[in-house]
Amino acid sequence: MSSTALLTDRYELTMLEAALASGLAGRRAVFEVFTRRLPPGRRFGVVAGQGRLAALLPRLRYGPDELAALDFLGPQACSWLDGRELDLDISAYPEGETYGPGSPVLTVEGCFGEGLLLETLVLSVLNHDTAVASAAARMVLAAAGRPLLEMGGRRTHEQAAVAAARAAYVAGFAMTSNLEAGRRHGIPTAGTSAHAFTLAHADEQEAFAAQVAVLGTGTTLLVDTYDTEQGIRHAVAAAGPGLGGIRLDSGDPAEQAGRARALLDELGATGTRIVCTGDLDEHSIAALAGAPVDVYGVGTAVVTGSGSPTAGFIYKLVAIAREPGRDAPLVPVAKRSIGKATSGGRKWAYRTAEGDVLRLTPGGPGRPLQVPLSVDDDPAAARARCAAALDALPEPARRLTPGAAAWTASLEET
Amino acid sequence: MSSTALLTDRYELTMLEAALASGLAGRRAVFEVFTRRLPPGRRFGVVAGQGRLAALLPRLRYGPDELAALDFLGPQACSWLDGRELDLDISAYPEGETYGPGSPVLTVEGCFGEGLLLETLVLSVLNHDTAVASAAARMVLAAAGRPLLEMGGRRTHEQAAVAAARAAYVAGFAMTSNLEAGRRHGIPTAGTSAHAFTLAHADEQEAFAAQVAVLGTGTTLLVDTYDTEQGIRHAVAAAGPGLGGIRLDSGDPAEQAGRARALLDELGATGTRIVCTGDLDEHSIAALAGAPVDVYGVGTAVVTGSGSPTAGFIYKLVAIAREPGRDAPLVPVAKRSIGKATSGGRKWAYRTAEGDVLRLTPGGPGRPLQVPLSVDDDPAAARARCAAALDALPEPARRLTPGAAAWTASLEET
Repeated sequence: MSSTALLTDRYELTMLEAALASGLAGRRAVFEVFTRRLPPGRRFGVVAGQGRLAALLPRLRYGPDELAALDFLGPQACSWLDGRELDLDISAYPEGETYGPGSPVLTVEGCFGEGLLLETLVLSVLNHDTAVASAAARMVLAAAGRPLLEMGGRRTHEQAAVAAARAAYVAGFAMTSNLEAGRRHGIPTAGTSAHAFTLAHADEQEAFAAQVAVLGTGTTLLVDTYDTEQGIRHAVAAAGPGLGGIRLDSGDPAEQAGRARALLDELGATGTRIVCTGDLDEHSIAALAGAPVDVYGVGTAVVTGSGSPTAGFIYKLVAIAREPGRDAPLVPVAKRSIGKATSGGRKWAYRTAEGDVLRLTPGGPGRPLQVPLSVDDDPAAARARCAAALDALPEPARRLTPGAAAWTASLEET
Repeated sequence: MSSTALLTDRYELTMLEAALASGLAGRRAVFEVFTRRLPPGRRFGVVAGQGRLAALLPRLRYGPDELAALDFLGPQACSWLDGRELDLDISAYPEGETYGPGSPVLTVEGCFGEGLLLETLVLSVLNHDTAVASAAARMVLAAAGRPLLEMGGRRTHEQAAVAAARAAYVAGFAMTSNLEAGRRHGIPTAGTSAHAFTLAHADEQEAFAAQVAVLGTGTTLLVDTYDTEQGIRHAVAAAGPGLGGIRLDSGDPAEQAGRARALLDELGATGTRIVCTGDLDEHSIAALAGAPVDVYGVGTAVVTGSGSPTAGFIYKLVAIAREPGRDAPLVPVAKRSIGKATSGGRKWAYRTAEGDVLRLTPGGPGRPLQVPLSVDDDPAAARARCAAALDALPEPARRLTPGAAAWTASLEET
């Protein structure tokens, strides 16, 4: 596996170099990841990416190839980096957990120089995967138990596509069209057919016969290439009333699904499922609650975070020791920049009925939210955790309408 | 380099399997990539990603590892795929060129089965990189000659970050903070410093002294951690009036830059550059035209396509032979789905004073836009091409206000 050491910003290396010279690189320090606000109108978020991050961090190693690319660094920094294994204590909200503004979703404790190096990779993974999972969770709530298929890989970067499929699955999607997500993360894969397949054949009947001959009557036929009603008749003629499914990808989905269901039933295909696709998002899914749709296929909206393609997490130093030593006492630090002030000190987070409560010392009422970052990447476990977290949301937070965050994590009054 | 064969959707493989059985997989066919519309309000787009795509396509090979993951395929499809080298004729708009709705930015000709396999990878690369380049080009126009630094890697997937840095550079950004983009694509890298560096030191003076001691007086100091005026005084005290730059990351940027410039000049630091960062986009850059800003650092907005994170390209079969043979005549095909009808036949595209004109046979007035897809990935050449293309835009297309596409590519009336 290739190194992840250069998936970072140049200033992390130049700051490290300066910190080595000023003697600070070895100081004990704490960094926290949080967001000041949720995306506009969002009432909660679902944090995701921890499993991917845990697999990428051990590869944050500077070998000869990486050091050769750092030709702007002097010998002290290069020798400090050379082959270094990071010795950091990282804890995080479990993948699939809900969060709000101020929730410290990831905490890094260790020496200042090593902590500096993590900023970009940590944020890239959590900002992307969380943006997708947070949008996907709203779609899962809107679908109210009907299965969702992620099929947006073609709308995003080819590797982001794999991570997006994983994040959507964590949030409760049932399957993905992305084969690499199936191989890499064990996500169930599924698919239907494209218009090109029908167009390539002399006519729709021939195309459907070819698909059924190879994939069986349980396959899903795309029926809207020419005329949808005719397409449905051709589909049932090709596969018989035991046809697995049809896909509708154009027109008004509620109207199309209603007509399709009536026609399928009339043709005896009462068990044939209707897969609805075509620029769906959480709002159009909710609007289809009364329509006879069996599966929602979602592309663009889920992989781009439904209008909010990044989660807004930032990575901030919150405490540092003023003297050397692994056990030197930490001193809280905070910036005072206009509109961007931070709150100093390491925070311990607990989930209570009111949301996340933060304390500057561990313990007290509520469920502890921070656990050690685990290299055991299990999207299925995260998916179960997310389902429980969504169930536990207060009713107003489950609404799709724009609203305030269900809670803002803040320091407990003492 | 690892295979790109699974960065695709499951249905491409099942369609291939059905097409093999129905005898269509070997038929001569043409697929085109285009978009029906630009993102809302956009007047033009800049197509990007061709250089990356050309490097990824030769790795679209099915070896033992990939075939093992395709356990849903039968022996005929597996044997057809096993080790297959794609034999396709691919042409595209040159990277960095402008485009409009209907512009056939990429054309694939070859056998139907191989053409099917490319859809997702082609769209992932072009949709992502073009979304970034199109947003970046508007920022470049807004900056009116002032240099732009891409620094948004932490706001997007860690690999998308590298591609985004490359796409922004193609569109005219001067540099990136992303080190992997520097190594992989030869993009110039740059960086300043983070608030963590200042916070880690006992005070701002100590932090600035440490940075200048190692990075020299030409470095850029971040002056807004505590109080910006005090920060500027500390910065000039640390580096002298020859200080390279200061960075402003908070508050109202026009006001902050004006005050900073006056104070720097008063302190004799008349050559010190002002780097402005903090959620900039094309509109806030344009609003800073009268402010004394020397470099714009742009993060979230550029890597997420400034509100439009995907370009909307689709990949459609436009012609197929109705009989076997490499030279069999092509028959135009088109779908008639509601609101999603396509136009059949391979199109040749020419740039005229009115925009892109399409013809069903090659030749005629205008500059030909389609060139063979080249494996020579040279972002600097694409950047020069984009600069010329932006210069050639009609004046209304250069406006940032929402408007109609400068042109829609359509078949020439004959």
